[in-house]
Amino acid sequence: MNKHELLARRHKALGSHSPLFYEEPLHLVKGQGVWVWDASGKRYLDVYNNVPHVGHCHPRVVEALCSQASVLNTHTRYLHENIVNYAERLTSLFDSSLATAMFACTGSEANEQALRMARHHTGKQGIIVTDSAYHGNTEAVSELGTEFMPDAVTTKRVKGIPIPDSYKGVEGVAPEDLADHYATCVKLAIEEFEEEGIGFAGLLLCPEFANEGLVNVPPGFMEKAVTHVHQAGGLFIADEVQGGFGRTGYHWWSHQGENVVPDIVTLGKPMGNGHPLSGVIVRADLLDEFGQWSMYFNTFAGNPVSCAVGMAVLDVLEEEQLLQNSVQTGAIVAQGLRKLQNRHEIIGDVRDKGLFFAMELVEDRNSKAPLAGVAGRIINMMCKKGVLISKIGRNDNILKMRPPMPFNKDNAEQLLQALDECFSAL
Amino acid sequence: MNKHELLARRHKALGSHSPLFYEEPLHLVKGQGVWVWDASGKRYLDVYNNVPHVGHCHPRVVEALCSQASVLNTHTRYLHENIVNYAERLTSLFDSSLATAMFACTGSEANEQALRMARHHTGKQGIIVTDSAYHGNTEAVSELGTEFMPDAVTTKRVKGIPIPDSYKGVEGVAPEDLADHYATCVKLAIEEFEEEGIGFAGLLLCPEFANEGLVNVPPGFMEKAVTHVHQAGGLFIADEVQGGFGRTGYHWWSHQGENVVPDIVTLGKPMGNGHPLSGVIVRADLLDEFGQWSMYFNTFAGNPVSCAVGMAVLDVLEEEQLLQNSVQTGAIVAQGLRKLQNRHEIIGDVRDKGLFFAMELVEDRNSKAPLAGVAGRIINMMCKKGVLISKIGRNDNILKMRPPMPFNKDNAEQLLQALDECFSAL
Repeated sequence: MNKHELLARRHKALGSHSPLFYEEPLHLVKGQGVWVWDASGKRYLDVYNNVPHVGHCHPRVVEALCSQASVLNTHTRYLHENIVNYAERLTSLFDSSLATAMFACTGSEANEQALRMARHHTGKQGIIVTDSAYHGNTEAVSELGTEFMPDAVTTKRVKGIPIPDSYKGVEGVAPEDLADHYATCVKLAIEEFEEEGIGFAGLLLCPEFANEGLVNVPPGFMEKAVTHVHQAGGLFIADEVQGGFGRTGYHWWSHQGENVVPDIVTLGKPMGNGHPLSGVIVRADLLDEFGQWSMYFNTFAGNPVSCAVGMAVLDVLEEEQLLQNSVQTGAIVAQGLRKLQNRHEIIGDVRDKGLFFAMELVEDRNSKAPLAGVAGRIINMMCKKGVLISKIGRNDNILKMRPPMPFNKDNAEQLLQALDECFSAL
Repeated sequence: MNKHELLARRHKALGSHSPLFYEEPLHLVKGQGVWVWDASGKRYLDVYNNVPHVGHCHPRVVEALCSQASVLNTHTRYLHENIVNYAERLTSLFDSSLATAMFACTGSEANEQALRMARHHTGKQGIIVTDSAYHGNTEAVSELGTEFMPDAVTTKRVKGIPIPDSYKGVEGVAPEDLADHYATCVKLAIEEFEEEGIGFAGLLLCPEFANEGLVNVPPGFMEKAVTHVHQAGGLFIADEVQGGFGRTGYHWWSHQGENVVPDIVTLGKPMGNGHPLSGVIVRADLLDEFGQWSMYFNTFAGNPVSCAVGMAVLDVLEEEQLLQNSVQTGAIVAQGLRKLQNRHEIIGDVRDKGLFFAMELVEDRNSKAPLAGVAGRIINMMCKKGVLISKIGRNDNILKMRPPMPFNKDNAEQLLQALDECFSAL
């Protein structure tokens, strides 16, 4: 079908605000591993999508989906092994205090229940996030999107702290004092909530600060911030929707690199390799307290098919040693990106966490002022070259790369070559 | 595996509050058509589950799932035919004013976006539901569960009106005046919202009043109520999560029997035959207005696999003439239930809408006082006889039956026979 005709029909049936990538939207028809193909047969290296975590259409995951879907798919008010096996396996990958699981279908739903748990547990409403956070699209979760979600404009029960960014830092604060500075922002927000009578319920962060631009937080910040949270009786919620399932390579969950133990962890995107599956991993006492307070039943969540898919994703991650690959291939890409930084002045900072990369584009390296417009040009140029990447950050000046986990050395070279050509052609 | 061991492991991994059906929970391992099997090989006639709408593990739906899952599963920021084809086909089944679709993964998510749309459109907060409603489990949607969801206790922006029940009626109100009486309750709630400064945003109802006990509303109530809503500038949201996709037989959507046109319709449960898929069907101007106000992107929703599954469900409904079957088999069941009513005094009322049935159990037929405890006994007796049904209603005295749509005459006879035996054995 003609792409423009399809686009016109889409606008009519879905409205014109449903977001699309690229100046010239891509019409994809096939995916396999780290590759996708458009309707004209052109192949693209996927360096953006983390949802097809173990690779597009991984045969092992598809097989698990189809096998279980042809035998039984029903809800959790009947007993079934799959949900129990999967919950046990998942929780075994966390600190022993995080012993229980609750399932949902999307990251928004997982964050919804985490917020309900924290607010019920504390009897208070105040949630602290970063001032560039996005955690989902329900009303209560939209309130966390302090930068651009309209529900956040009027809420009194969410406060955004500055992004704890060791690259840009804070004027007048020495680098070695940054962790304390940002942790103090958390402490002050807690105090404000208490003074305002709203009270403090919890701190909710993506430990990778993915939507904030994959920032490197000052070492020690997380530990200090979570200490303030716990001293005030609040909960620490780690949103691992982007950073989880071994993305960072050294750990299954990105908070595990930070010497903190969350009270609640939310999971999503990569969990079912594209199948709608999310979860909350939580202290058993908190889940019990929540369950006494509110009935929670989710018609689709935790069904035998979803759990079979989730289990297959864990199988593939382990058997194909994809965490190790994230470390190894991640290092190759990171090294290459830093070489590009040496050659291209606008690359102010390169950040890497396993197979997750960010390149911050700046006006000049001293001021670190965001370079407007160029990241968008680069991702469109990259797309024409057959490589899919994206951009992020409040100034849209940070390139975001986050490929499926089987990304290999050859893929890395293709990515680096294409990036070099694009930066050289600017 | 031993069922008690599985139950103990489940309690440990998922907590003890995750709901289970029956005194002796069922451990299901297989499903096909209207049948499910437990781990011991015992077969059960499924007269409860509406999620496996066209039958458990329907081969056509499983085939659509597997075919697309092995080719491409990605999000809606790329173009794909499936979402466009599906949105066009779905909206074609509605009034022409309901021309656009938005997808989500659960009924809760669909209702979330409907509430956000209505509140944004009106600039007001007040939502009217029935006082026995349940529409989902996110914070904002939990507030609608005025009877038992804890979030509803403190909210000021939801009001429950009495269930518009033509069976029990209202003391001192003549039957022919009931529609006006209940519609006036809506009008008064609107006025209260305005007086309180909260303002009125919309009326949200399941047009089948499924969770309220599949009540028969006084003829004309819906039309009168929706007129009040529109006169006050509010929106009418029809929650078709239970009543949609031809359940009632004569119509695709249960509101279509009521001479009303909603502004927003939410869809869920049967939509993907168990695959997590839900949607909002909405006036194009409202979707556009919402899209200008808030970015909405749902990572999983509307992906090519989900849309292929949704399309297959529509195909099967049409090709197997399941709406016609709902009318025909539904009439047989209804006739049989009324025969049971003639023989068993505690059956105060029998209600049927296609393949959806309710039997209200009463202390005596004059007072219509709810009969406590017996519905629970009956569903457990039925389960032992190999027939799955459930109960509903604020007094837990209403038997709820809602089988997969291919339910046939033989299935009907088995159901009726088993019910007769249970009522006789009380």
